Amino acid sequence: MTVTNRHPLVTLLTDYGTADEFVGVLHGVIAKICPEARVIDLSHGVMSHDIRGGAASLAQSLPYMPVGVHVGVVDPTVGSERRAVALKLVQGHILVGPDNGLLWPAALVGGGIEQAVEISQSPWCLQPVSATFHGRDIFAPVAAHLAAGEPLEQGGTPLDPTLLVQLETPRARIEGSAMASTVNGVDRFGNVQLQAGPEDLSVLGVKLGDQLHVQLESGELHTGTYARIFSDVDEGELLVFEDSSRKLALALNRGGAAARFGLHAGDQLRLSNARELQ
Amino acid sequence: MTVTNRHPLVTLLTDYGTADEFVGVLHGVIAKICPEARVIDLSHGVMSHDIRGGAASLAQSLPYMPVGVHVGVVDPTVGSERRAVALKLVQGHILVGPDNGLLWPAALVGGGIEQAVEISQSPWCLQPVSATFHGRDIFAPVAAHLAAGEPLEQGGTPLDPTLLVQLETPRARIEGSAMASTVNGVDRFGNVQLQAGPEDLSVLGVKLGDQLHVQLESGELHTGTYARIFSDVDEGELLVFEDSSRKLALALNRGGAAARFGLHAGDQLRLSNARELQ
Amino acid sequence: MTVTNRHPLVTLLTDYGTADEFVGVLHGVIAKICPEARVIDLSHGVMSHDIRGGAASLAQSLPYMPVGVHVGVVDPTVGSERRAVALKLVQGHILVGPDNGLLWPAALVGGGIEQAVEISQSPWCLQPVSATFHGRDIFAPVAAHLAAGEPLEQGGTPLDPTLLVQLETPRARIEGSAMASTVNGVDRFGNVQLQAGPEDLSVLGVKLGDQLHVQLESGELHTGTYARIFSDVDEGELLVFEDSSRKLALALNRGGAAARFGLHAGDQLRLSNARELQ
Repeated sequence: MTVTNRHPLVTLLTDYGTADEFVGVLHGVIAKICPEARVIDLSHGVMSHDIRGGAASLAQSLPYMPVGVHVGVVDPTVGSERRAVALKLVQGHILVGPDNGLLWPAALVGGGIEQAVEISQSPWCLQPVSATFHGRDIFAPVAAHLAAGEPLEQGGTPLDPTLLVQLETPRARIEGSAMASTVNGVDRFGNVQLQAGPEDLSVLGVKLGDQLHVQLESGELHTGTYARIFSDVDEGELLVFEDSSRKLALALNRGGAAARFGLHAGDQLRLSNARELQ
Repeated sequence: MTVTNRHPLVTLLTDYGTADEFVGVLHGVIAKICPEARVIDLSHGVMSHDIRGGAASLAQSLPYMPVGVHVGVVDPTVGSERRAVALKLVQGHILVGPDNGLLWPAALVGGGIEQAVEISQSPWCLQPVSATFHGRDIFAPVAAHLAAGEPLEQGGTPLDPTLLVQLETPRARIEGSAMASTVNGVDRFGNVQLQAGPEDLSVLGVKLGDQLHVQLESGELHTGTYARIFSDVDEGELLVFEDSSRKLALALNRGGAAARFGLHAGDQLRLSNARELQ
Repeated sequence: MTVTNRHPLVTLLTDYGTADEFVGVLHGVIAKICPEARVIDLSHGVMSHDIRGGAASLAQSLPYMPVGVHVGVVDPTVGSERRAVALKLVQGHILVGPDNGLLWPAALVGGGIEQAVEISQSPWCLQPVSATFHGRDIFAPVAAHLAAGEPLEQGGTPLDPTLLVQLETPRARIEGSAMASTVNGVDRFGNVQLQAGPEDLSVLGVKLGDQLHVQLESGELHTGTYARIFSDVDEGELLVFEDSSRKLALALNRGGAAARFGLHAGDQLRLSNARELQ
């Protein structure tokens, strides 16, 4: 049950951005330890300290990744007593990162945790371990040794997986004739992903092509179409669609819904069939 | 005439940006199908939906790329009836992307199209194909199979290349003693590339070192030097030079010409020999 | 004493940004010449023309990189008479870039220069060499040939290392009971790195946990804690800490110190023990 070594793989998801050399340093550390490893930058554009957003990106990406070692670093309490962990999942992936909930949704997507170790004092750490750059000194070197096929139990001390920090995921709620949902995140195009899927709208009897009311927290009301693709509505018009992660999302055809409506991750929305309110 | 498999190569050019995990997912999809492939990120900074800008980047880059499979995704009508295509070029490259003109200039640069297939229903697609993320579900997996050496004709249905969407390229025009040209694009340094080359200025009798009048659409007139390099003019001064793609470009020595003059892709400019207007 | 060829490595540090295809073109040029090379993007986010910032990034990263060829391109006088150089360091690394000081601090970190060549007329250049994109036409191809194991002396003409442009590094100064220091740079989180280390504060008798006065150029005075990690202070509070490059840095716990205090690279600060001024 070791990671296949013919094509060792490490992926990186951080909130480091690419303005500085931090990400390049992670690549260098990994290449020194496991020169055969392919390293994929999953994303370094997670909003600073946004554990929830990073967790969603990691979990949504995992099914498209080869079996390998996946490093997540969104770590607002780096250097404190929070644990650093490596988790072997039932489906073969290994996750490496801080124990703050970031890895939790991906662990569920990967079939659950088979084996966990605490790696703060891993023999594979770069010494001396800095107080603020655990990506370089703990997570990247541990991931590289694991990608090279070294056994998880040599990388740290055993940890009971039930002690890990879990990240709760608030689901959409049906409230009367409306669905109340939380904004999961906003992508580069200004599309607004909800923590809800098409099945939640089905409960309300909404079908593709129906008009929907979208109510903001301010009470402001907008009308859009429940559509399959952007070009199903006119340019600048609002649509609600199933995005590529199979979640509901708000968008404007060739525009940015997030900016137009002032929406951010964590905001609340209510969707209802436009006929119901008439 | 298959792609060499000793060093399979896929390049990616998209308007996805790097704030999200979309690009990382493309890398994962490719690595799963063709673990030996090198994947080069040509650019993910194409302006959202800017087919013309993406087409210029792809065409200008192609001569510097090893023979391989080049994916372009700038796709404002994703999910509609537009075709998805893979094009084998005379010089050996393969282009993969939407049939909206994005691939056309690169196809010409690569010697023209030898063979074309429609890939919307390719057996290599990831199922189910989403309505909005064809990069992940169609283009990346098809490119990976082709990079692995599988034959083009197994990836889709034959398509007559003359049916492809073509992208017209407006060339500079001589109008009296001036050259009228369109702004092709603006780079990170604020340099303004024109759809014109040094040969267009030669027609006007302009030589290196001459002073040029640059007239904006507003009628505003600026004077600059036709120079070889930035440091040929004083700091902050305007120059017109032959850029690294052998096109004429406007720049300020250590400044941003685009911001100073309010120029964007698609704007019109008139260049003339400063002596002519005096 | 050639670079190991089993895992040829090229790293890239530039101010090109990633909005355009420039970086992708460098990767293509290298892959054509040395298909086996791993290419690491150290950073392309160096501020435009910021030689000092680029030099610091390169020097701080080098110890974490495998032995290889490291390209630096921050080149405001590209195309002028400035030299282009390749430098073999005592510890085995090779540096390639313009001779404007950018490579100097990294050369010191790498043990000093063993052998230098001028490469403006290198037989490995792509012809014709453009006036403005030496990254593509000179630095990337020379680096790729060196990564492939070709000898340095075949890549250019011998150069006396004492003729290279040197970059002076102003150190912190003790002025009475205060330490005067220059801002080295600002990272994505708004942390402000000083050109000073913990040893400079020790001279003032400052110990972890002490309160510090931080005086801006305007005379404005702020108070913070000399702390080990961010969470040692309350949210929004100022701390001075040893960063991962072992330099002193100013930060706000979960905030951006640079924006709050209006600090930029090159600014001057005075730090003193808060007790001294009371």
